[in-house]
Amino acid sequence: MKVVAIRGAGGPEVLAIEEREPRALEPGEVRIEVAAAGLNRADVLQRKGFYPAPKGTVPDVPGLEYAGSIIEVSAGIDPLRIGERVMGIVPGGAMATEVVVSVRETIPVPEDLSLVEAAAIPEVFITAWDAVRVQGELTRGQTLLIHSIGSGIGTAALQLARAWDVTTIGTSRTEEKLTRCTAMGLDHGVLVARGDPSFASRVGELTSGALANVILDTVGGAYLAENVRALAPRGTLVVIGLLAGIEGTLPLGILLAKRARVIGSVLRTRSPDEKAAIASGFTHDVLPLLSRGEVKPVIDHVLPMADIANAHAAMERDETFGKIVLVW
Amino acid sequence: MKVVAIRGAGGPEVLAIEEREPRALEPGEVRIEVAAAGLNRADVLQRKGFYPAPKGTVPDVPGLEYAGSIIEVSAGIDPLRIGERVMGIVPGGAMATEVVVSVRETIPVPEDLSLVEAAAIPEVFITAWDAVRVQGELTRGQTLLIHSIGSGIGTAALQLARAWDVTTIGTSRTEEKLTRCTAMGLDHGVLVARGDPSFASRVGELTSGALANVILDTVGGAYLAENVRALAPRGTLVVIGLLAGIEGTLPLGILLAKRARVIGSVLRTRSPDEKAAIASGFTHDVLPLLSRGEVKPVIDHVLPMADIANAHAAMERDETFGKIVLVW
Repeated sequence: MKVVAIRGAGGPEVLAIEEREPRALEPGEVRIEVAAAGLNRADVLQRKGFYPAPKGTVPDVPGLEYAGSIIEVSAGIDPLRIGERVMGIVPGGAMATEVVVSVRETIPVPEDLSLVEAAAIPEVFITAWDAVRVQGELTRGQTLLIHSIGSGIGTAALQLARAWDVTTIGTSRTEEKLTRCTAMGLDHGVLVARGDPSFASRVGELTSGALANVILDTVGGAYLAENVRALAPRGTLVVIGLLAGIEGTLPLGILLAKRARVIGSVLRTRSPDEKAAIASGFTHDVLPLLSRGEVKPVIDHVLPMADIANAHAAMERDETFGKIVLVW
Repeated sequence: MKVVAIRGAGGPEVLAIEEREPRALEPGEVRIEVAAAGLNRADVLQRKGFYPAPKGTVPDVPGLEYAGSIIEVSAGIDPLRIGERVMGIVPGGAMATEVVVSVRETIPVPEDLSLVEAAAIPEVFITAWDAVRVQGELTRGQTLLIHSIGSGIGTAALQLARAWDVTTIGTSRTEEKLTRCTAMGLDHGVLVARGDPSFASRVGELTSGALANVILDTVGGAYLAENVRALAPRGTLVVIGLLAGIEGTLPLGILLAKRARVIGSVLRTRSPDEKAAIASGFTHDVLPLLSRGEVKPVIDHVLPMADIANAHAAMERDETFGKIVLVW
């Protein structure tokens, strides 16, 4: 099989297509011929040497999500499943022509979606759904504050929130991204200046003082105190990324007064049982929305896998709106 | 009726016994003749002017918990309940010969306990139970780290954890308090120096690296970063007090890697429905343990209500182990 290999920490030039031997299936596993894989910021961090793959994962092949077709099943799995179109998240190794995964972690691809479209779904929609619905317990009629609204996770959370009748407030440092999100149904866009994260009072104005029931944050340290100020009583701040700081000041006095919570969440390190629960929960909650077209993958552009270095460079320029998908 | 009145922010000398007019009952309420009321640190803070009573609460009468007998019921409540011995928490006003509360918020006093003993139960046992069980979701076989283990909340949490087969680690700045808690069944005592909150590595040693599934913290800012370091993966830090700092540094990188959470919790501002749910949950979960003597109120000393100023002074000297109870 072919893989994208990281030949040492560095710039996009360290990425190269290599041949590898596929491994045999273990019980419960299926082999998937990967049609397309979405690019994620974690791939860039891994390439730079900042975000090593978890133990037990191929260390030098990036890729956290795939869409493809089952081409082999282990003993005990119905061979009629060969040919099934599936998608999913993996702790690494998705930038390859084949991946081997537990069948419990696969998610069926809705009929009307191509595998290229499907490859843009798992990471951002599972992350957004898990963070705001499973962790944050967001419910109909509440308000969700989404930082980096123009990102893949941001637009996924926005669409899910709209489908759930949730009021959305999105922040971005780019006016153009706010405009595009407003066109997608964002209720309120808040432009934030670099180095000046003052959005809480604006969130207060926009909600007549009710503030945000759930905040989805990929920024981290620099936004922490302001996030707690923007939280409604009994609200939940779910931090899933640390683009601006691995630590921050937590105003505990406000946290207690609001009886609020801060949850740190990552998908990559979850146990097989947790991943199976995610796949089935997501299939139940979100797949119907994808099937009916109520939420849609947002794709910035599609490149052949051979252009993986260019894809990384484009992501690092931070000019994309939605996902970059690589196809074999 | 008689009340303890705060005649202006200041030292214990601002406290005085005064006569007040009792108010009429609203539907759903009962009047309780208070036999005894536990003293809490919040009473001292309120006396100093730092912790005003919530809106709708008598502003100048302290007291967050009571034990007594029902002496009047509003229309629709069975008059046979008159004479029932009950205890409970209130947002203020318990240092009075009478309190008026919603009947849903009362908790029956177990037969074998006196009303003086009962007055030492509600605040610390409800707080500890709600924090570690309801918020922290502590379960059998886990490890609980309890700061200020010698405090009323600390010894309540310790006893509950023992009844639930939970391993307990307690911190204190006083060797003698650790000794007394060890005699009560504390598994591991950790002496912490003032201004040097380094306990996480010790928690790691004591648990063979497993760390604490739940942390009950009344210290706040100064302990925050170290608390997150002492948390097990998927652990929960419940902050219910801020004795050392209303803000602190939150190591978000660790929080994410552990998929851990920080919850701020206070009892005083809860809604009537929440308080009713607390009373019924506590009656179900903890009352059997109190009835069987598996957990017991820890009382440092009992004083007549006329000695309220001395009681405040004793609490401020921080020499007590367990509760101070005031009796009429």
